[in-house]
Amino acid sequence: MNSRLQCLRNKLKAQNIEGMIISNPVNIKYLIGIEAEGILLLTRKENIYITDSRYIEMVQSKLTVIDEIIITNVKDITDEDYQNYFSFCENVGFEEEYVTYSKYKEYMHKYRINNLTETEQIIERQRVIKDDEEIDNIRKACQLTDNCFDYLLSFIQVGMTEKQIAYEIQRYFIEHGASGLAFDSIVASGVNSSKPHAVPTDKAIQTGDIIAIDFGCRYNGYCSDMTRTIFVGYVQEYIKDIYNLVLKNQKQTLEQMYEGANTKMLFKMVNNDFNLHRYELTHALGHGVGLDIHEEPSIGPKREMLLKENMVITDEPGIYIPGKFGVRIEDTVLITKSGCETLTKSSKDYIVI
Amino acid sequence: MNSRLQCLRNKLKAQNIEGMIISNPVNIKYLIGIEAEGILLLTRKENIYITDSRYIEMVQSKLTVIDEIIITNVKDITDEDYQNYFSFCENVGFEEEYVTYSKYKEYMHKYRINNLTETEQIIERQRVIKDDEEIDNIRKACQLTDNCFDYLLSFIQVGMTEKQIAYEIQRYFIEHGASGLAFDSIVASGVNSSKPHAVPTDKAIQTGDIIAIDFGCRYNGYCSDMTRTIFVGYVQEYIKDIYNLVLKNQKQTLEQMYEGANTKMLFKMVNNDFNLHRYELTHALGHGVGLDIHEEPSIGPKREMLLKENMVITDEPGIYIPGKFGVRIEDTVLITKSGCETLTKSSKDYIVI
Repeated sequence: MNSRLQCLRNKLKAQNIEGMIISNPVNIKYLIGIEAEGILLLTRKENIYITDSRYIEMVQSKLTVIDEIIITNVKDITDEDYQNYFSFCENVGFEEEYVTYSKYKEYMHKYRINNLTETEQIIERQRVIKDDEEIDNIRKACQLTDNCFDYLLSFIQVGMTEKQIAYEIQRYFIEHGASGLAFDSIVASGVNSSKPHAVPTDKAIQTGDIIAIDFGCRYNGYCSDMTRTIFVGYVQEYIKDIYNLVLKNQKQTLEQMYEGANTKMLFKMVNNDFNLHRYELTHALGHGVGLDIHEEPSIGPKREMLLKENMVITDEPGIYIPGKFGVRIEDTVLITKSGCETLTKSSKDYIVI
Repeated sequence: MNSRLQCLRNKLKAQNIEGMIISNPVNIKYLIGIEAEGILLLTRKENIYITDSRYIEMVQSKLTVIDEIIITNVKDITDEDYQNYFSFCENVGFEEEYVTYSKYKEYMHKYRINNLTETEQIIERQRVIKDDEEIDNIRKACQLTDNCFDYLLSFIQVGMTEKQIAYEIQRYFIEHGASGLAFDSIVASGVNSSKPHAVPTDKAIQTGDIIAIDFGCRYNGYCSDMTRTIFVGYVQEYIKDIYNLVLKNQKQTLEQMYEGANTKMLFKMVNNDFNLHRYELTHALGHGVGLDIHEEPSIGPKREMLLKENMVITDEPGIYIPGKFGVRIEDTVLITKSGCETLTKSSKDYIVI
């Protein structure tokens, strides 16, 4: 059986859960590498992947004997089969933060489960620590992102719209081997940069503009995430203090990102420094990155978690002056034994185009 | 109060449900026209929209006194407020096919609700019948789709890849006023057309290829959906019988689409004709189109529903010969008092490029 599936089975066993219904496609991709419409059942003795005629052939060609997964066509399954899958399981887990209430009721009925148990993000928690293959994929996505940024610096011209630039990011990624965007790119120029979640508009780039570009791609399903805030023509004096403050905190955070660091403390450290200068960190300082663009841990003011080797997270402080401008600087970061490695490597000094 | 919200309140009342928690963003857009992160509460007397600092300003600028919606910032709400919202409601509805099991439990606890009741897609069922404004938006999306198809006929050249064409569709839509794609475009050439849900590949278009193009855009959130199957250079003889059979059934279905027509019978009619020729209709004959690309009703073999004036649905029969080719022809269709109107108007005769 593959190591990710074996690890999950061990964790379930430790929680006295004998089976699990896995329906979140991201978790299925993580566990068995399959991207299709289907459901993965971990019964007491078997791993069963149920899909339909559209995908059976592809799934069969991807899985091997070593995977120990029984592939079943949904049209060959009887009501009795469903009822037998978990007949020797007292507790069967499910993904309570993915499964809708109506699916939950359907599962209860269809599988005749005694105790359909919340697993408290058991797979998502496993996904927080990346293995070598996952890190390679994220590394590749980050390289593509750096390359795209290099390209953008020569591409962006006064008069282009934010939408055109956002569109070019997508074109670049697709033409250079990414499977797509990790999320809708943010290209926010001038006053638009004051909104952390700005959507690209038809506003044209002007000399003197600041441009916040927050973007990333997917490689084999894995995401990258980087923000750079750049300048058109020259750097307006009134922006420099804030840019420097954000950059200083972004770099200081990198120095504090190591095995054992407390996420809540990281957030507090930056927010305290911002507060000293009468600003505030209004969003999370960072988040995990993997098959989802936002994963655990969240580096924010509420929950705390200790960083561990092979977590991949972002470091993205930002300051936003409503109606004026905003600055955010963000890297994707791998936690290592001795500290951390930034996987996005584009320059963070003033960049003037 | 706006008419959509009033209509929903009347339906809830008829089901003895005094309040509702609405969290599906598509339903919120439908009811109050707002696209943001937030939640809409219908309490006994009030309509309350809860959002956060990022969206408050935009929401306030869009809603008017006539909407009768109280806008609240999530950070100003106390635990007690939450508990009071539904304090005089015996039954409070929720969207059981959208809300996850863990959110369901959170709502129960947070709002202290006696009876959190499944509403059986009450809003989705309301959305099935489109009003004038919705029809205008869908009509515009369909026009853009026809225009894009015209453009594609001159754009597509031998040697281009499916991915390039799919990409060009997106570029065209964005540059011509659509807000985006209604779904990931299917551009499936040669043998790839045999898969109803093919994903565009790096395969280059060749002379003699058949190309199935299934695509649509969004206009003000509303979708269009059209498929045309076209030919490169010439029409292979062995394809003609199947093309003609699909087209005949697509047109016959249009003749049978009127107020009162039974969706299951529509499916059966086509499938029977396909069976006579030893083929089979392996997917639904059509589906509703609106703010979601797939809405009720599904025109398939299982559930039956009667068509009604101002439903917008697709008519998309297809035949797929595994390992060889496939043909699908699809229009977006408005049901009218006297019959129906196809909103996508591109030619369905043999198109050779």
